[in-house]
Amino acid sequence: MAILAKENWKRNIHVISQKLKRFPGLLWQTIWKVGRDDPRRVVHALKVGLSLTLVSLLYLLEPLFEGIGQNAIWAVMTVVVVLEFTAGATLCKGLNRGLGTLVAGSLAFLIENIAEKTGHVFRAVFIGTAVFVIGTAATYMRFFPYVKRNYDYGVLIFLLTFNLITVSSYRVSNVMKIANERLYTIVIGCGVCLLMTLFIFPIWSGEDLHNSTVAKLEGLAKSIQLMLRKKSHRRIPIDKGYKAVLDSKSQDETLALHASWEPRHSRHCRYPWEQYVKLGAVLRHFGYTVVALHGCLQTEIQTPRSYRALFRDPCSRVADEVSKALIELANSIKNRRRCSPGILSDYLHEALQDLDDALKSQPRLFLGSNNNQTTSMLALAAARANAIQKHAKNNVGVSLPSSL
Amino acid sequence: MAILAKENWKRNIHVISQKLKRFPGLLWQTIWKVGRDDPRRVVHALKVGLSLTLVSLLYLLEPLFEGIGQNAIWAVMTVVVVLEFTAGATLCKGLNRGLGTLVAGSLAFLIENIAEKTGHVFRAVFIGTAVFVIGTAATYMRFFPYVKRNYDYGVLIFLLTFNLITVSSYRVSNVMKIANERLYTIVIGCGVCLLMTLFIFPIWSGEDLHNSTVAKLEGLAKSIQLMLRKKSHRRIPIDKGYKAVLDSKSQDETLALHASWEPRHSRHCRYPWEQYVKLGAVLRHFGYTVVALHGCLQTEIQTPRSYRALFRDPCSRVADEVSKALIELANSIKNRRRCSPGILSDYLHEALQDLDDALKSQPRLFLGSNNNQTTSMLALAAARANAIQKHAKNNVGVSLPSSL
Repeated sequence: MAILAKENWKRNIHVISQKLKRFPGLLWQTIWKVGRDDPRRVVHALKVGLSLTLVSLLYLLEPLFEGIGQNAIWAVMTVVVVLEFTAGATLCKGLNRGLGTLVAGSLAFLIENIAEKTGHVFRAVFIGTAVFVIGTAATYMRFFPYVKRNYDYGVLIFLLTFNLITVSSYRVSNVMKIANERLYTIVIGCGVCLLMTLFIFPIWSGEDLHNSTVAKLEGLAKSIQLMLRKKSHRRIPIDKGYKAVLDSKSQDETLALHASWEPRHSRHCRYPWEQYVKLGAVLRHFGYTVVALHGCLQTEIQTPRSYRALFRDPCSRVADEVSKALIELANSIKNRRRCSPGILSDYLHEALQDLDDALKSQPRLFLGSNNNQTTSMLALAAARANAIQKHAKNNVGVSLPSSL
Repeated sequence: MAILAKENWKRNIHVISQKLKRFPGLLWQTIWKVGRDDPRRVVHALKVGLSLTLVSLLYLLEPLFEGIGQNAIWAVMTVVVVLEFTAGATLCKGLNRGLGTLVAGSLAFLIENIAEKTGHVFRAVFIGTAVFVIGTAATYMRFFPYVKRNYDYGVLIFLLTFNLITVSSYRVSNVMKIANERLYTIVIGCGVCLLMTLFIFPIWSGEDLHNSTVAKLEGLAKSIQLMLRKKSHRRIPIDKGYKAVLDSKSQDETLALHASWEPRHSRHCRYPWEQYVKLGAVLRHFGYTVVALHGCLQTEIQTPRSYRALFRDPCSRVADEVSKALIELANSIKNRRRCSPGILSDYLHEALQDLDDALKSQPRLFLGSNNNQTTSMLALAAARANAIQKHAKNNVGVSLPSSL
């Protein structure tokens, strides 16, 4: 047993030392990959470092420190907490922080005024009660869907500031003066954040949402194209294209929320983030159908080769046209230009018509008397493709087409 | 024009006053609904109020204040920021905060020691450089996927504490003493949070994940049942059942992350959160197929009534059995008991066999020579249903069945 334990021990040490040896390499790989995937991350990190150094100067430089004093530390705190990756997120947090601080300050001032006129013991009880009631109410409010979506951080800061001021005011006489000075430094901190986020290599949530919409259309198109070529290379990752679409909801909504705080920032109009969210929902719905189709293609049981040969070409052509239409839409969104719906739907319609003809040529295989209905179904499909395209392009309200 | 503007003005005021009149009612409705949807929210709000009052006593009660002093305010801050809805989230945040503070303190101490030996100006430059380098590096680290998932908040607190200590140390001589006292009060704050979150009406992320897994199975079962009854009531919200499943990924992952911090907390074993995440992925995949099927049912063009009549009963039975199997699985997870896979798959297999027979009885309608393959396909489907069930039950690794 002792020998076995010793062996185990040796092996463990060996494994750990191996891991430690590989660690620097792995770390370097991660550092490199994170930066290569999105070089804006490096820019953001440098921006944070620079902002922190700037607000630290309030403390380090003699003349600045004399004007502001110990409270300069709140500017540092604000920068650490408020400066986020995208401009929209920073604005959202900064405004929430400002609003929360202001409301909390006013409320604390009110309670301070009431408590002032009472005796020492009663005052402590009053402050304790206020802390309990406001703490409970504010926490409960954070569960309201509307508040949670837009002002969650603001309510947190409100609660923090309110408690800091109210509780301090019991021991410190000039608490309002302190609060006032603190507000100045928070404003300085927010100012530095706004400067950095809006004017120095700004990163826009709206642009991210725009790019992710394009990537979604391209991913779906790629998945459909790969499915056509499946026979030749069995191990192509078809699902890579549509997987990103399926789980995009929460990310899209966060980006759209932040984009809604961003100002109109270029010659182009503001990014239509509301429409991108709707388009995202439509594309997810389309993605579900692609998954189902992919599942059918992957089953071990396939239709006999002779039947498949009959419909291979028209099917390939429809898939090809759908994929082309998606890429055309992706390009038109990417380059912010209108694409003529006619060209897209004409080819698609033609391909669908060919498939219809192929189906009709083999009445033995299908529900015999159903030809009229097939035709009308195809016409409907073409009309729908047309309508979706228009929606995507013109940014009008998109309702989920149920049979996408 | 003036009259028109006046009219508009009047109408606007009317609309606003109407909205104001309805506001108290709406507010009350929201308050009521938020509490009724999940009564634990009320408990959580009261817990936060109580914790805040408790840590405020450090400030309000004379003997306690004498021992701790001004730094008591950091206990209040800790409670506001750390106390989250579920035990797992609180533990995750609390430990992150503790770890971040400790590492930051050590690093700040090191830099302080180096800077101490140099001149006044050089010291300022050294501190400024350290702030820039550490700020940039820590921000960049937050983009590493592993750090982002587990320690995002810890790195933020590290950056905050490091800057506070380093920058303060330039003007204040006894900064280490302050940091030390501050650490005590943060520990008190964290202690109150842990007490509240673990021992007073605890809310477990693992339990939420457990319940959401049950709800997903039930929702899918309900959707399938409603589809069967679609003809009679056209406006039944079938999609309500499966919608929650489709977009559950990010919520599941957050719950699982928090559940991973939770201790084994009852007679039952710890919730198998890793398996729930995998099961969630399988159910989402199943959900995609349900969406595709629902789309087929909703199209305006339907198979002729005579054909439908032929297969209605066997199809209904298969759907019924699938839905029953899902409910059985939901119940077995809910009540933490094994269900015998045999009973489930036997009925399902029988229903599939019936459908197979019905299909075979109408060879004219289908690809004629394909009977053998249909049978083997159904056998495969039954085997798969069996396998999935076992996976779900035994909590072993689940790989995505491609044709679910």
